[in-house]
Amino acid sequence: MAEKLWAGRFEEKTDALVEAFTSSIAVDRRLYVHDIRGSVAHCRTLARAGIIGEQEADALIGGLEAIEKEIAEGTLPFTDALEDIHTHIENRLAERLGPVARKLHTGRSRNDQVATDVRLYLKEETRNVVGRLVGLRQALVDLARTHLGVVMPGYTHLQRAQPVLLSHHLLAYFEMFSRDVERFRDALRRIDVLPLGSAALAGTTYPIDREHTARLLGFSEVSRNSIDAVSDRDFILEWLGAASVCMVHLSRLSEEIILWSSAEFGFVLLPDAFATGSSIMPQKKNPDAAELVRGKTGRVFGSLLTLLTIMKSLPLAYNRDMQEDKPPLFDAVDTLKACLEVYTRMLPQLTFDTGRMLTAAETGFLNATDMADYLVEKGLAFREAHGCVGRAVRFAQQHGKELEELSLDTLKSFSPVVGQDIFQYLDVRRGVDRRRSTGGTALENVSAAVKEAGERLDRESKWA
Amino acid sequence: MAEKLWAGRFEEKTDALVEAFTSSIAVDRRLYVHDIRGSVAHCRTLARAGIIGEQEADALIGGLEAIEKEIAEGTLPFTDALEDIHTHIENRLAERLGPVARKLHTGRSRNDQVATDVRLYLKEETRNVVGRLVGLRQALVDLARTHLGVVMPGYTHLQRAQPVLLSHHLLAYFEMFSRDVERFRDALRRIDVLPLGSAALAGTTYPIDREHTARLLGFSEVSRNSIDAVSDRDFILEWLGAASVCMVHLSRLSEEIILWSSAEFGFVLLPDAFATGSSIMPQKKNPDAAELVRGKTGRVFGSLLTLLTIMKSLPLAYNRDMQEDKPPLFDAVDTLKACLEVYTRMLPQLTFDTGRMLTAAETGFLNATDMADYLVEKGLAFREAHGCVGRAVRFAQQHGKELEELSLDTLKSFSPVVGQDIFQYLDVRRGVDRRRSTGGTALENVSAAVKEAGERLDRESKWA
Amino acid sequence: MAEKLWAGRFEEKTDALVEAFTSSIAVDRRLYVHDIRGSVAHCRTLARAGIIGEQEADALIGGLEAIEKEIAEGTLPFTDALEDIHTHIENRLAERLGPVARKLHTGRSRNDQVATDVRLYLKEETRNVVGRLVGLRQALVDLARTHLGVVMPGYTHLQRAQPVLLSHHLLAYFEMFSRDVERFRDALRRIDVLPLGSAALAGTTYPIDREHTARLLGFSEVSRNSIDAVSDRDFILEWLGAASVCMVHLSRLSEEIILWSSAEFGFVLLPDAFATGSSIMPQKKNPDAAELVRGKTGRVFGSLLTLLTIMKSLPLAYNRDMQEDKPPLFDAVDTLKACLEVYTRMLPQLTFDTGRMLTAAETGFLNATDMADYLVEKGLAFREAHGCVGRAVRFAQQHGKELEELSLDTLKSFSPVVGQDIFQYLDVRRGVDRRRSTGGTALENVSAAVKEAGERLDRESKWA
Amino acid sequence: MAEKLWAGRFEEKTDALVEAFTSSIAVDRRLYVHDIRGSVAHCRTLARAGIIGEQEADALIGGLEAIEKEIAEGTLPFTDALEDIHTHIENRLAERLGPVARKLHTGRSRNDQVATDVRLYLKEETRNVVGRLVGLRQALVDLARTHLGVVMPGYTHLQRAQPVLLSHHLLAYFEMFSRDVERFRDALRRIDVLPLGSAALAGTTYPIDREHTARLLGFSEVSRNSIDAVSDRDFILEWLGAASVCMVHLSRLSEEIILWSSAEFGFVLLPDAFATGSSIMPQKKNPDAAELVRGKTGRVFGSLLTLLTIMKSLPLAYNRDMQEDKPPLFDAVDTLKACLEVYTRMLPQLTFDTGRMLTAAETGFLNATDMADYLVEKGLAFREAHGCVGRAVRFAQQHGKELEELSLDTLKSFSPVVGQDIFQYLDVRRGVDRRRSTGGTALENVSAAVKEAGERLDRESKWA
Repeated sequence: MAEKLWAGRFEEKTDALVEAFTSSIAVDRRLYVHDIRGSVAHCRTLARAGIIGEQEADALIGGLEAIEKEIAEGTLPFTDALEDIHTHIENRLAERLGPVARKLHTGRSRNDQVATDVRLYLKEETRNVVGRLVGLRQALVDLARTHLGVVMPGYTHLQRAQPVLLSHHLLAYFEMFSRDVERFRDALRRIDVLPLGSAALAGTTYPIDREHTARLLGFSEVSRNSIDAVSDRDFILEWLGAASVCMVHLSRLSEEIILWSSAEFGFVLLPDAFATGSSIMPQKKNPDAAELVRGKTGRVFGSLLTLLTIMKSLPLAYNRDMQEDKPPLFDAVDTLKACLEVYTRMLPQLTFDTGRMLTAAETGFLNATDMADYLVEKGLAFREAHGCVGRAVRFAQQHGKELEELSLDTLKSFSPVVGQDIFQYLDVRRGVDRRRSTGGTALENVSAAVKEAGERLDRESKWA
Repeated sequence: MAEKLWAGRFEEKTDALVEAFTSSIAVDRRLYVHDIRGSVAHCRTLARAGIIGEQEADALIGGLEAIEKEIAEGTLPFTDALEDIHTHIENRLAERLGPVARKLHTGRSRNDQVATDVRLYLKEETRNVVGRLVGLRQALVDLARTHLGVVMPGYTHLQRAQPVLLSHHLLAYFEMFSRDVERFRDALRRIDVLPLGSAALAGTTYPIDREHTARLLGFSEVSRNSIDAVSDRDFILEWLGAASVCMVHLSRLSEEIILWSSAEFGFVLLPDAFATGSSIMPQKKNPDAAELVRGKTGRVFGSLLTLLTIMKSLPLAYNRDMQEDKPPLFDAVDTLKACLEVYTRMLPQLTFDTGRMLTAAETGFLNATDMADYLVEKGLAFREAHGCVGRAVRFAQQHGKELEELSLDTLKSFSPVVGQDIFQYLDVRRGVDRRRSTGGTALENVSAAVKEAGERLDRESKWA
Repeated sequence: MAEKLWAGRFEEKTDALVEAFTSSIAVDRRLYVHDIRGSVAHCRTLARAGIIGEQEADALIGGLEAIEKEIAEGTLPFTDALEDIHTHIENRLAERLGPVARKLHTGRSRNDQVATDVRLYLKEETRNVVGRLVGLRQALVDLARTHLGVVMPGYTHLQRAQPVLLSHHLLAYFEMFSRDVERFRDALRRIDVLPLGSAALAGTTYPIDREHTARLLGFSEVSRNSIDAVSDRDFILEWLGAASVCMVHLSRLSEEIILWSSAEFGFVLLPDAFATGSSIMPQKKNPDAAELVRGKTGRVFGSLLTLLTIMKSLPLAYNRDMQEDKPPLFDAVDTLKACLEVYTRMLPQLTFDTGRMLTAAETGFLNATDMADYLVEKGLAFREAHGCVGRAVRFAQQHGKELEELSLDTLKSFSPVVGQDIFQYLDVRRGVDRRRSTGGTALENVSAAVKEAGERLDRESKWA
Repeated sequence: MAEKLWAGRFEEKTDALVEAFTSSIAVDRRLYVHDIRGSVAHCRTLARAGIIGEQEADALIGGLEAIEKEIAEGTLPFTDALEDIHTHIENRLAERLGPVARKLHTGRSRNDQVATDVRLYLKEETRNVVGRLVGLRQALVDLARTHLGVVMPGYTHLQRAQPVLLSHHLLAYFEMFSRDVERFRDALRRIDVLPLGSAALAGTTYPIDREHTARLLGFSEVSRNSIDAVSDRDFILEWLGAASVCMVHLSRLSEEIILWSSAEFGFVLLPDAFATGSSIMPQKKNPDAAELVRGKTGRVFGSLLTLLTIMKSLPLAYNRDMQEDKPPLFDAVDTLKACLEVYTRMLPQLTFDTGRMLTAAETGFLNATDMADYLVEKGLAFREAHGCVGRAVRFAQQHGKELEELSLDTLKSFSPVVGQDIFQYLDVRRGVDRRRSTGGTALENVSAAVKEAGERLDRESKWA
């Protein structure tokens, strides 16, 4: 029968509504593997300290493993009456083993237990996310490599600004996602700390060796202060912060995919398999996956705000509010992983209309900065040069021409220093290749950057 | 077989990952009743316009009703391949009725259809929320009525400030939740607008009478601009804003229940049925329900931020990002309703320790303002009086006494105007009763306020 | 000399750092007009109740008016030592009038005083915002009127979907901003409540007539519960919610202005006076105003979340945290007003490239839905028709043609019901005009909508 | 005269309203030192590459330094017409030096310039914040050291749970703020990257040595991709995330200071210098500083969400929206620094009522877990023991006693294994000292933790 872990002091039964309201089993059942893994390690540590016998430990561990299988197979029923995954497992253990099961909860509390479960879970998922980020960065590098030399307009303010290489643009995302990996790895150091043994809040009177438990569970460190250990949800907040920044990057990429696949830009063609149609407009082919990723960004921000709000002003140590940490975390983990996977699979299937990109880069005076640079080389101060070119652009625009379509005489009229060699400066492809300073878009730079990015990924996968 | 509503133009099949990623059936299945109700009304309007025959309409409606039953009974399987609830229902209709089913989607699009479904859903849930708010306010009024005359310390900065009536304190919450009702009712006016017939974004070429559909579905208005009708999620944002403010109120009440049930305050005793215990500390009785409500506040704020983020900067008209409006809305509706219900049932079962409350009100110089008012009455300017009393408080504190425990001579030493009648001013209960200005805490006022609040609730329930 | 209003009880002087940290004068000085207006009314009410003499009242009011002038002229110095605007004014009054000044603070507290100030301020600013929204809506209607008949592509998923009238698109924004007006007016009802006389939290013992003060200050209602009156910041939260939704609308309009003024869309030309250039790229003309409005949306959301976070879980009544309500409110008010003004002035100066818009509407199969409707009229079920047209679109696309450029025979090959009259259905302008259902984009509808919108504005300005 | 850096192409003058709306000078003037420092380094790099002469460089640098002085002294007037701090400085330089000033902007753009300024600023402020966190942690360790041995109730759910040492409780905050230091240091690695030389977005054609500029400015790295370098605001988002978590910690500490200084808890006495009074209630002494810190938490959360919202979905590269990054950043930096400083100065001045704390720890069955542990030692399974103690607590409560006040016989009645030695287990101080597992609250542990914390701080200050 379902019995609360704390029934002794109470005279009345819990109101059924309260039972449903306070129960977390629908959410935390997902942690059953981690809860059992933590309990198995705790068992071994209890036995090592002589608090339970070796045989008892074996029985408990056998029981726990059997329950893990039951849950995996869906044969263990869940009920709000048993509050949470910890109680379900312990209760089932008692059904299987009798009184000995009640020894498992020695030297720990649900407060340190749930913190341990979530840390185990999040270590695993952080590695999954980093793995997917590596995959996504590989897809970007591959795309950059196979499109080396494709020229497109670079934009600022969504206005065509200067020509750049498509590969250079793609590698900007490589850099963003590389920083995301760093942030998740930094977060991992603070996730990778074992709270078990902090008990309710004050530590335990049982002589358990917490470092031993840490080794069994693969934690690098043991928490140093029991009150902090059960009160701390920083590691989730930091993770949600990193996830939010990563979603910002995915939302920017999505915005560009959506723009580029519009009729107006026409830079990219989505594969049928990654688009959907309209129930009413037969001609439509919508970039739904990119739109949904963009939309789901809001969801991850929401999760971050949710937990910040929950944690604000909570007195130490554990408060029940903190049970609400799991829905936003689980939702954010699932969302981020799905978005990364969708992009990793979609990117290689994009078809770029490179002709259209080049034409766009050649239209709209994207070589105006180059003309200014030319004038500076001929002796003008940059600001003067900027003024001359501004007037030339206005003239050309009024005559429906690009700068390179003006005659030498016309160009001279804006500054006497102009000579025949200006036309080399007005060539878009040459303009790209002149930007050779570190980090610039010259083909030479970008080829090296592609190579270096590939090497970074190789190193990382070895490291992993 | 599962067929997309828009397959015609596409050559490749949708990638299974994309299918799962873009599918909303796990979320929007919940709208099936509203979707079918909307389709039935649409059918009638199509028939009325002669676009389909009356017999066809009857067949379609019969089919829809049968499907509603199937879904209610859980016999219709859901699959990501069929994207959303609209497609599931239409597809099932085709299985049942053959080609005629395909006529149902005439003159509408999923864009206006889903907007209609959500509005039908939210009208209903807003009424539910208002109903629960009425119930909660009734519980507050009842509590205020049965505790008339109980004196407690009023706090500012969590420092005891002036004595007030517990009923007055409770009625402060009555006011807050009354404003919440107003806000939800105001929001309702903007929810209560029919978008159906706006089709994809431009309106429909079929001569349907949208006002007729509105009447059938109980909408007060028809949307005036088709592009706006399919792009607009204001009504959800406004609802989430109202819900967030309501949760602020519930979180404040929760904070007080938690404080009051602490050993230090000891003002209130929770019923066993609304508290839970500890798995490790046998003496604990925790105000879990209040803590969870306080925590869930973060969740509703998160939902609001999620949708604000999603909607920001979306160009007109429909974008797939907007599919992400439903998870935060549904979660907020469920959360708010559950929190309101828990409080409505918990409040009547609270036991107040009125003796302890009174003692607290008599300890800590809560009558200091009254002494100042006395001195003003005797001719001092308020600021001077304030200074005298400040010094008297300091003196009393140093001698471990309350003001009324000082001798007349001692009191006189702070101001010569002090006379014997000061002791009437220092009596806590009389102090309460002197605050008779509108909205003040005098028993006379509060009794009237309780009466008036009861009458407001009566009027509202007649109105409802 | 600067003296705290509460120095009596304290032995040590306030730490200078704490003084600077807790001071709000840099922020709330902005409320001086409202603070003085409130004090003048309070004076009259005190005199009316005989608490001060008429001559005293006149002296106080004369002093207050002189101080208002001093502050307006910048001759009153502000200092953190005097905490806030209330203390500055009262202190200055004492300098001018001597002891009588100290009578002003009878029957009130800073808790109800600041709530009154902010409500007076926000009533005024809400009217300003509504006024600007009316102006912006007028600009939209004017633009819609002068561009009646201009056809453009309607978009969903940023893919061209169906042709619509530019005026119809503009009126979608008219609808959004009309709802914003409604929301601000609803909020105004809850702002328009006088808290003065609630004193610190319990009401006042002085027999003041709060209804009289309300009449003097133009408040429609008097707060009903003194604890609620000093604890309540709902009216700011609701305002910030309405402002956030309004910024969502402005951000969507901004996104479209930015898209439309890109080289790729080329639908709109910004006036030089509303764009800025680049310090390095002489050809650039950037839609900075629109971008900044879009960016400032984040700022208003931030203000809303700031105050929600502050208010969450605060026990009653006043807590010092609530002092932090003003920075986000003032910032949001200023931001919203500036954004509204910028748009109201920019919109009339936009130049639309109507030729380019029409061409875009004629390119990309925006008449596909019309072909489907044609087939339905000829007897196909909508879903079948959708499939036929999907195939026709694919064929046309592969041959680089629009649907209307295919021969009758080719069109027939997709469905035998096709006849010569199909070409009328494929004409974009006729397609627009066929969408005559309520809210549809037909010229006839849109003309009426423009007229009706103008009439609504006329009525509102009479109402105002 | 005020001249735009980009006037060449424009025919009309900027609208004054737009000028005010788009100007950032009121905000970014604060970066003038960093802007000039960056320009000086840029000058040196230009000269080194032979792009300008050494004499020109000297003149420019001399001019820049003179301008820095002018700004510091407040003699340079600021005007919206000159947009931003970059333009003000360059314009003033031209006034002082004539045409040569215009050479300074060679090989850079305002896009990389402002990114450089903000990174320089934030490196400096991050070090300031870390310094203040070290100071705050020192204050906590000092307080823990001087209060070693003070017993207080540990709380969960704000219910007394188990006795702990005050020092242990304080060290929980030491751990939180230590993690904050780590997070800010991790963020610093990603701030410490030079974007200058990325120019508008594509890199520069001038052969400048960016690594040289980095060395001059003390940056550890040079950005690798020019598009990313001008688009990236991750480093601010990450910083705001770290600041938000730090504010969560400060808000929790504040909540406890507020609770502890209430009449009900009475654990702590605030120094007069860190509290304020009431304008109406002479007895009040309010924990304003703590309340304001708690309130300001909302402000920092708001800043984070503001920038997340701004950055979401922005296409590459620079967009004007990003100008809005500075108000939330500057506000968060100022807020966090002020809050840290207030606490560092307030903590040493708190007076703890250790007698009251001990009494509280001895009241309310905080030794119930110890009784359960005792029973386990005597052979009961933990769950059984828990049940026995629950019943004992209920009994004692009904008789108005603590557990240690029950007779041996009575205690035996709950479990026959109870013997005389149980009373040692029920002693609160012994209970504290039995919690000796790593991280537990035993005096022995906590003394070691205090020592270790001190050593960590020593190491860090050497490292710094």
